[in-house]
Amino acid sequence: MSAPVVALSGGVGGAKLAQGLSDLVDGEALTVIVNTGDDFEHLGLHISPDIDSVVYAMAGLDDPRRGWGRRDESWAFMAALTALGGPDWFALGDGDLAMHVERTRRLAAGVRLGAVTQALATALGVRARIVPMSDDAVRTRVHTDQGVLAFQEYFVHRRCEPRIRSFRFEGVERARAHAAAIGALRDPGLRAVVICPSNPFVSIDPILAVPGMRAALGQVCAPVIAVTPIVGGRAVKGPAAKMLAELGLAVSGESVAQHYAGLIDAFVFDVADGQAPAPAGPPGMRGFRLDTLMRGPEERRRLAAEVLALADRLAAEGFTGRAGRVRALDPSG
Amino acid sequence: MSAPVVALSGGVGGAKLAQGLSDLVDGEALTVIVNTGDDFEHLGLHISPDIDSVVYAMAGLDDPRRGWGRRDESWAFMAALTALGGPDWFALGDGDLAMHVERTRRLAAGVRLGAVTQALATALGVRARIVPMSDDAVRTRVHTDQGVLAFQEYFVHRRCEPRIRSFRFEGVERARAHAAAIGALRDPGLRAVVICPSNPFVSIDPILAVPGMRAALGQVCAPVIAVTPIVGGRAVKGPAAKMLAELGLAVSGESVAQHYAGLIDAFVFDVADGQAPAPAGPPGMRGFRLDTLMRGPEERRRLAAEVLALADRLAAEGFTGRAGRVRALDPSG
Repeated sequence: MSAPVVALSGGVGGAKLAQGLSDLVDGEALTVIVNTGDDFEHLGLHISPDIDSVVYAMAGLDDPRRGWGRRDESWAFMAALTALGGPDWFALGDGDLAMHVERTRRLAAGVRLGAVTQALATALGVRARIVPMSDDAVRTRVHTDQGVLAFQEYFVHRRCEPRIRSFRFEGVERARAHAAAIGALRDPGLRAVVICPSNPFVSIDPILAVPGMRAALGQVCAPVIAVTPIVGGRAVKGPAAKMLAELGLAVSGESVAQHYAGLIDAFVFDVADGQAPAPAGPPGMRGFRLDTLMRGPEERRRLAAEVLALADRLAAEGFTGRAGRVRALDPSG
Repeated sequence: MSAPVVALSGGVGGAKLAQGLSDLVDGEALTVIVNTGDDFEHLGLHISPDIDSVVYAMAGLDDPRRGWGRRDESWAFMAALTALGGPDWFALGDGDLAMHVERTRRLAAGVRLGAVTQALATALGVRARIVPMSDDAVRTRVHTDQGVLAFQEYFVHRRCEPRIRSFRFEGVERARAHAAAIGALRDPGLRAVVICPSNPFVSIDPILAVPGMRAALGQVCAPVIAVTPIVGGRAVKGPAAKMLAELGLAVSGESVAQHYAGLIDAFVFDVADGQAPAPAGPPGMRGFRLDTLMRGPEERRRLAAEVLALADRLAAEGFTGRAGRVRALDPSG
């Protein structure tokens, strides 16, 4: 059994790296803590876009070109829904729909989101533990120049066009961190915590906002490493770059690294963003540079291996756990 | 505008004749009162199998070979649901699913079943009025040698294998007949009421059990004609023959005619069930014989035309409305 690893992930980009990690970390030794701030009710269905992206990637069912949903998907439901005059702004593939319908059915029967997620993932052959940040409802609200929008309203219906002002994670104060997430972070044998290349504001921040999550991250006995979602001054996918700009920040890995200051031990920049040596991260953090673009399964696995090697290197260089982090690591890179 | 016609219908067989009638009766002049005793909740969805069969037939979307659901249907949802370990005993096509999801969404938003049905049918190009027997929930329970079963549990999950003892239409005492159904039956210009070739026990009886429905049928000013669901001693589709036998009745058109005694003016037997002259119906009813098998759209239209001609003939022969029925019509055929 390999040493345990924890990943924090949003949807697409995060799911790719999480899948790469699952190639290298045995079964349940990998715990992926997934954002549920994007979850919403649509057509009476409980939709968990980030959980589904992670589950599909782990199960080898994700569509690598489209970047969301299932591969070899068909769209007869959407065509029929449109013909009926139903709300068709959120695309639901025929196979994908089964996930939402079955999740909703099980939740209505009283099973909690974490247990439903694990059961559905297991049914699809996933052996890693996929854990929602919380069983309790947390809903990301986007404050924009056009008012406060529910996340999917902003993200899908309005195509991220409104200008961002801030974010709020409704219900997060009362949400309890999922016990399996906290348990995995407290594992004394932990090898690494990887913050996947997901949107820092709407994918990772909701996870970090769940009470107890930052504290648990502050106590882990392994290096915490974040991978940039910004490559060549652009987001690989999604609105991260647009959000950085609208918040008055440089569209760069440095901005994301700064966002995680105090939380992580190392930040992985992309090779497209300058030549070696890697830019220094903010104080208390080391910067590294890797090819972070994951064009196919091989590259997911390769990046995952490099990030784990990096964690091992930090540990070998004298990392003594988060409590001793600032002392043990040279912040200059 | 053609003279108004009312049809009472269950699913498949009834839907075929209702569609034939819609070829001959202009738009809203045709009202189809549909059984909702088969309705059920499944996977969190409100499924109305008979309404859907009628709507699909009217919209030209029915699958004439399978006999239910939509033509050119795909099954990616069911395959994915099965892979997830979800309940897959009730087959839901990808396109069909849109009907259930959108109906459920609108009902949850507070729209009543009749209004939802009309809106969805209109969206699919149906111009006839398709009216559920009631907006209120009525649920057929089948009393069998294996206990009391919900209708779809008996019909689909158990494949009609348990032996029938009786039927109960749960909630029917409190159900209000749909106003559009009663209004159509009261129309002073009514040309005919057609009881379609549907199962008398579980498709037509639930309609007749709704308070006010029998009384309204007793007062109509047009001939009431039922078409046999039994052809050549067998049900064209479904468990009608098995039910007749298990209830100790002959599997014949006569048994069905007898079942409707006092309610109808004429019964249409199939040509496969003997040679002319037609068997006499029970007292107070005339028997006729037609080719009732509807193999394709042409035959639906032909049978509908023949049934309407029969109604016109009854009227021409001195039919003076239901109150004068027994006096006006010669019960010997």
